[in-house]
Amino acid sequence: MAPKTLAVPAGTRIAFQGELGAFSQHAGQKIFGSRMEPLACVGFEDVFNAVARKKAVCAVIPIENTLAGSIHQNFDLLARHSLEIVAETSLRVKHNLIAHPGVTLPDIEQIYSHPVALEQCKGLLSRLKKVEKIAFYDTAGSVKFIRERNLRNAAAIASEDAARVYRMKIVRGGIEDDPENYTRFFALARRGSFTRGGRKTTIVFGLNNEPGILFKALSVFALRNIDLTKIESRPIRGKPWEYLFYLDLQSDIRSPECLNALRHLRELAPYCKVLGSYPVF
Amino acid sequence: MAPKTLAVPAGTRIAFQGELGAFSQHAGQKIFGSRMEPLACVGFEDVFNAVARKKAVCAVIPIENTLAGSIHQNFDLLARHSLEIVAETSLRVKHNLIAHPGVTLPDIEQIYSHPVALEQCKGLLSRLKKVEKIAFYDTAGSVKFIRERNLRNAAAIASEDAARVYRMKIVRGGIEDDPENYTRFFALARRGSFTRGGRKTTIVFGLNNEPGILFKALSVFALRNIDLTKIESRPIRGKPWEYLFYLDLQSDIRSPECLNALRHLRELAPYCKVLGSYPVF
Repeated sequence: MAPKTLAVPAGTRIAFQGELGAFSQHAGQKIFGSRMEPLACVGFEDVFNAVARKKAVCAVIPIENTLAGSIHQNFDLLARHSLEIVAETSLRVKHNLIAHPGVTLPDIEQIYSHPVALEQCKGLLSRLKKVEKIAFYDTAGSVKFIRERNLRNAAAIASEDAARVYRMKIVRGGIEDDPENYTRFFALARRGSFTRGGRKTTIVFGLNNEPGILFKALSVFALRNIDLTKIESRPIRGKPWEYLFYLDLQSDIRSPECLNALRHLRELAPYCKVLGSYPVF
Repeated sequence: MAPKTLAVPAGTRIAFQGELGAFSQHAGQKIFGSRMEPLACVGFEDVFNAVARKKAVCAVIPIENTLAGSIHQNFDLLARHSLEIVAETSLRVKHNLIAHPGVTLPDIEQIYSHPVALEQCKGLLSRLKKVEKIAFYDTAGSVKFIRERNLRNAAAIASEDAARVYRMKIVRGGIEDDPENYTRFFALARRGSFTRGGRKTTIVFGLNNEPGILFKALSVFALRNIDLTKIESRPIRGKPWEYLFYLDLQSDIRSPECLNALRHLRELAPYCKVLGSYPVF
């Protein structure tokens, strides 16, 4: 049977973006178990640097949301840094309106949260006409903010974890418009820290600009019945209208068909990097 | 010889996002000529609605930047609305530090602009250590803001057009870090307003979740030597981990090979919509 978490010693430091109580921290606990030690970082670049510079053993980053789409900055950072994807997980995103204990809906004049969270709760927010919506850098950070400033006419939108961490109250739970709201996360580590291999493999490659070349590149997987679960393209700096392609494959890099497909792809792609081959939790 | 602009009567109203002097307005003049009448809108959704509700004849929207990547909201709006792409153009994006006449670099304590523009001028901004960077909803709008409030300790980052429109001064020109900074724009109109056809065709389609299906979908173009210039994927609401694919084809929809390829694609794709076939200016 597959293990339920990735084996790391108790107290292993795991970096993530945002404040304590962030969705990424929750995803980290799903991958590494509850005895990990969270390391809160301000930006995604800081998260990558924390692992590269050995301030943390691993990192957890969001890569894709079923409503908002890919988190493109993290795709770019994966190509630029040399960390490896060591695990994947996904979480159902449940947003909650959070305020100081005793505060009720009519008391609220301002609502703070990350722009994506504000966007995902538009239904409730549009009914609260007189309430001012204020974009904040982080969901859990917005709970911390209204707590530290003791704002009793304000609320924040964040996770249940964030409410618990900052000892605040959920005024209304599950306020997202669309319940099919999931975020997929990657766990990252320095190359060689974990044994490579698992249910999925993620790669990034660049192609020369010639007709039909993307079709040829995808043929190396189709010819071997390797299923693609996602394709993402991102611009290449300094080469206008050229792209890097990111593929998620349902394949283990330790299998002959995956190794052969990647060898075949390298015949076509001047640039090709395996970002990781990993289990899913 | 191909015409230099899309023929519209003088005074034809063209909607765009942002304030007068925005890059989109400049792109509109490249497509429709200088006698168009600009209609400034607050958000991209407003731009689409302006054309759908006949407040404007056409719209101009940015779709992709060579550094920041796709403007995903506009891909989503193209699929949801029933407007048609009638032309494409691209502009080199040149950012300028703009302030009131008489203001010099040492006077500046705050710099306002759109977050993408602030990001693209990080080199200069990181050297101006004591200057506060303030994210604003629009580049040209930030020039308007510092003019209207008469802020003499502030500057904005925007186009030369924006400096001219608001009679402000360029303190420093061409401040972007990377000169390979281009934005691609689409002109949109209600379906049937213009004759369909031109050098490029853009489509959106959805596929059933089965192994190798994207490869099969791309084969309909490769088999007919139709070149793809861009592929973009976006999540489908309510169907976690399923995607819509947007393709730009180097092909005219009036050609037999393009029509045959699209007929072939419809055999594979339960959903397929032609977003436009259009000239490039």
